[in-house]
Amino acid sequence: MTGVDLLGYSAGAITTLTFLPQIIKTWKEKSAKNVSLVMFIIAAVNEVMWIAWGALLQPANWVVILTNSIILVMSLTMIVLKLRYNK
Amino acid sequence: MTGVDLLGYSAGAITTLTFLPQIIKTWKEKSAKNVSLVMFIIAAVNEVMWIAWGALLQPANWVVILTNSIILVMSLTMIVLKLRYNK
Repeated sequence: MTGVDLLGYSAGAITTLTFLPQIIKTWKEKSAKNVSLVMFIIAAVNEVMWIAWGALLQPANWVVILTNSIILVMSLTMIVLKLRYNK
Repeated sequence: MTGVDLLGYSAGAITTLTFLPQIIKTWKEKSAKNVSLVMFIIAAVNEVMWIAWGALLQPANWVVILTNSIILVMSLTMIVLKLRYNK
């Protein structure tokens, strides 16, 4: 693995965790009034597109499928939290 | 361009716009109390990593560089809005 590969995998790992601080903050504060629901709906739909893209590639790209599945779960979690704590 | 290519480019275009609804909402409401600053700092650092990765590839991947530059600008914009309207 080259340094450039390592940078790419590190960047991918961090991308996967991007939404986690918002989930933790909303969970702790029980408030998501100023958080954009549209942002997380767009993110969720977008993750489904990326997963489909990764699955349709020949051969399928499991790194794309796996990382975007994690982000999809986080996006759906934030949508639930937003709807629950929209005050 | 195949259908799979088209799906990938469409997904990339939507990814680029993910943060825009949050920027618009925060700009309108002048409040970002429940928005996670950490999320956008992670996103900004992460975009710099992706831009570096795209630039270091042989040949450089200008789609990666351009799309992540747009997301970087949006992340930095949200950091400024969060610090300004953290009430």
